[in-house]
Amino acid sequence: MREQLIEKIMEEVIKKVDAPATEEAPQAEKKHSSLTEFVGTGLGDSIGLVIANVDHSIHEAMNLDKKYRSIGILGARTGAGPQIMAADEAVKATNTEILAVELARDTKGGAGHGSLIIFGAEDVADARRAVEVALKELERTFGDVHANEAGHLEFQYTARASYACEKAFNAPIGKSFGLVVGAPAAIGIVLADTVVKAANVDVISYSSPAKGTSFTNEVILTFSGDSGAVRQALITAREVGLDLLGTLGGKPASTTVPYI
Amino acid sequence: MREQLIEKIMEEVIKKVDAPATEEAPQAEKKHSSLTEFVGTGLGDSIGLVIANVDHSIHEAMNLDKKYRSIGILGARTGAGPQIMAADEAVKATNTEILAVELARDTKGGAGHGSLIIFGAEDVADARRAVEVALKELERTFGDVHANEAGHLEFQYTARASYACEKAFNAPIGKSFGLVVGAPAAIGIVLADTVVKAANVDVISYSSPAKGTSFTNEVILTFSGDSGAVRQALITAREVGLDLLGTLGGKPASTTVPYI
Amino acid sequence: MREQLIEKIMEEVIKKVDAPATEEAPQAEKKHSSLTEFVGTGLGDSIGLVIANVDHSIHEAMNLDKKYRSIGILGARTGAGPQIMAADEAVKATNTEILAVELARDTKGGAGHGSLIIFGAEDVADARRAVEVALKELERTFGDVHANEAGHLEFQYTARASYACEKAFNAPIGKSFGLVVGAPAAIGIVLADTVVKAANVDVISYSSPAKGTSFTNEVILTFSGDSGAVRQALITAREVGLDLLGTLGGKPASTTVPYI
Repeated sequence: MREQLIEKIMEEVIKKVDAPATEEAPQAEKKHSSLTEFVGTGLGDSIGLVIANVDHSIHEAMNLDKKYRSIGILGARTGAGPQIMAADEAVKATNTEILAVELARDTKGGAGHGSLIIFGAEDVADARRAVEVALKELERTFGDVHANEAGHLEFQYTARASYACEKAFNAPIGKSFGLVVGAPAAIGIVLADTVVKAANVDVISYSSPAKGTSFTNEVILTFSGDSGAVRQALITAREVGLDLLGTLGGKPASTTVPYI
Repeated sequence: MREQLIEKIMEEVIKKVDAPATEEAPQAEKKHSSLTEFVGTGLGDSIGLVIANVDHSIHEAMNLDKKYRSIGILGARTGAGPQIMAADEAVKATNTEILAVELARDTKGGAGHGSLIIFGAEDVADARRAVEVALKELERTFGDVHANEAGHLEFQYTARASYACEKAFNAPIGKSFGLVVGAPAAIGIVLADTVVKAANVDVISYSSPAKGTSFTNEVILTFSGDSGAVRQALITAREVGLDLLGTLGGKPASTTVPYI
Repeated sequence: MREQLIEKIMEEVIKKVDAPATEEAPQAEKKHSSLTEFVGTGLGDSIGLVIANVDHSIHEAMNLDKKYRSIGILGARTGAGPQIMAADEAVKATNTEILAVELARDTKGGAGHGSLIIFGAEDVADARRAVEVALKELERTFGDVHANEAGHLEFQYTARASYACEKAFNAPIGKSFGLVVGAPAAIGIVLADTVVKAANVDVISYSSPAKGTSFTNEVILTFSGDSGAVRQALITAREVGLDLLGTLGGKPASTTVPYI
């Protein structure tokens, strides 16, 4: 009886411990800071911050144009695609520029990237607004990140790429844009091949562990085309990806709601 | 009594949670996919895939020779050495070529690499066969990967290096070849010194966190020589490695059966 | 009742499992090795080793000056700053040189670095002494590493930088030196800006995920100045950092005792 109880508990615990890194418990209540630099937090251990008057020595150290007196900062342990797509909406909606997109090798032991995105503005209110918009968008852009204990898949779509997609992926401004990520990388190759066979799209870039990523275990394909073609390619690849990643573990799950 | 029970359970759980990443529970039943691209799965969260007719735009994006109409793909979250040695047997046994070996920084939070290996073939049956052979070989090549919660050790040997060892490590084709890995890297340095003192072998390469690895916390020495010398060097280094890694945690363990 | 018990145990377990990587249980009893190469172990899965007579082929492979017949090795899964600062004290106290500082992307799934530091000596007793001093210093230099489940902060100070700080960070020898680390990197940018506004210090270097780190999710600022100014900058930044990192998780905690 005691042994049975131990076993039952072990099962429950292992289930929790094995849950993918991105599948975090919903934050019961968001924590706040009284610092003026603090904007908010979001999915993927994302944090949003602003600096109203960047010190000149930091402008130089970061190699930023001094005309951007204020910067907005969006950083995350887990995820780059969701944050970049969210930042893309933020630049459309505000008077800011994307100054830098840097990708750490992270995801807290997962197979992918963390991210650091810098918005530039002349007024701190604009920088703050951009960060607020981006944090809010994360709820949507995490929708087609599907993970299990063995890896993750990501599908992103925008009908009209803007400056964050251009900075990060060289996407043509104003055109429909999509990206697929498969981890482990082997799965990403099949997704890439699926995308180009599924619809008439143009490949923009192909990244792999040794080239174009920060040594993540991912293959990433970015592409553009007609809105319908980009979406069709993503939907087809998503079906293939969920099937393949599922052979290595549990059913891959999204933390929010798929949007494509 | 209740407190004792909690304590007992905590002990059990911590034991499980602390188990090294490579020491996965044996997959009770392998999962399958009905996709024609799927070949199988293996140790280290390895997945084997094929593409029968690679799309030309993917050939270009991956920078592959178009004469290889079909590719076989072996990818893994945990391990590079075991997969490369397994691929080496696969190219010996099949009509395929090794087109690429890429190493991610991975092992799911461990100190080492994940891997992505591409086989090229003119016929998909050959690509599939290569991936099948490699997946099967993993059972053996994981034999001398020994891990505890603080790091891992790896010892690999082949009597006759083939094209995967050449591609990944610059090993001379047809000669006896060995490699040692120590993680954390400090241990690998002592292993490297032990190898060259234990037997008459020729150093091929030395890799460390900042040079020759994907920023893993490993030192890797590769070497060739007479079959007996290579094996003697590996056996001596294994003894030293198990002793040193054991000072940082539990007794390092193999997930399968040591073969050297 | 049974359900309540399971819940209570789950809580306890999740607490333990979520504890930051650096917050290891104190090693009840240190383990030893009888190998002459073994010196000791320390915080952060650090291991200290020596090689009395480095084989010439290893000298060459590691690209070390052969006049250093003996080397001391300090390697760690978790941490680079604490080990470098500890090594800095060790070179001051012994007849050794710093031959190499290499930074792995590690911290066992955390956001930062592991490290590999090589001391050179003509006599093995000197190499051993340096490693012993460094291992002992880790207790202090881990004092201002504060971590929670979402990231970490690090603050280091020395009144007089020596050769390890010079090798790793280009610090001017003999001057007061400080460094701040924030992870996720977004927090590090605010710390960097805080440092230069808090006191009259000179920036030496700024590192970020894509530049100057091994793709860690950190921003690192190093700086020098008057002893009082460096300390004041660190104390101010520590307050800001603890506040910001706390918004992403639990209260950040040190594993030992803050020293600044």
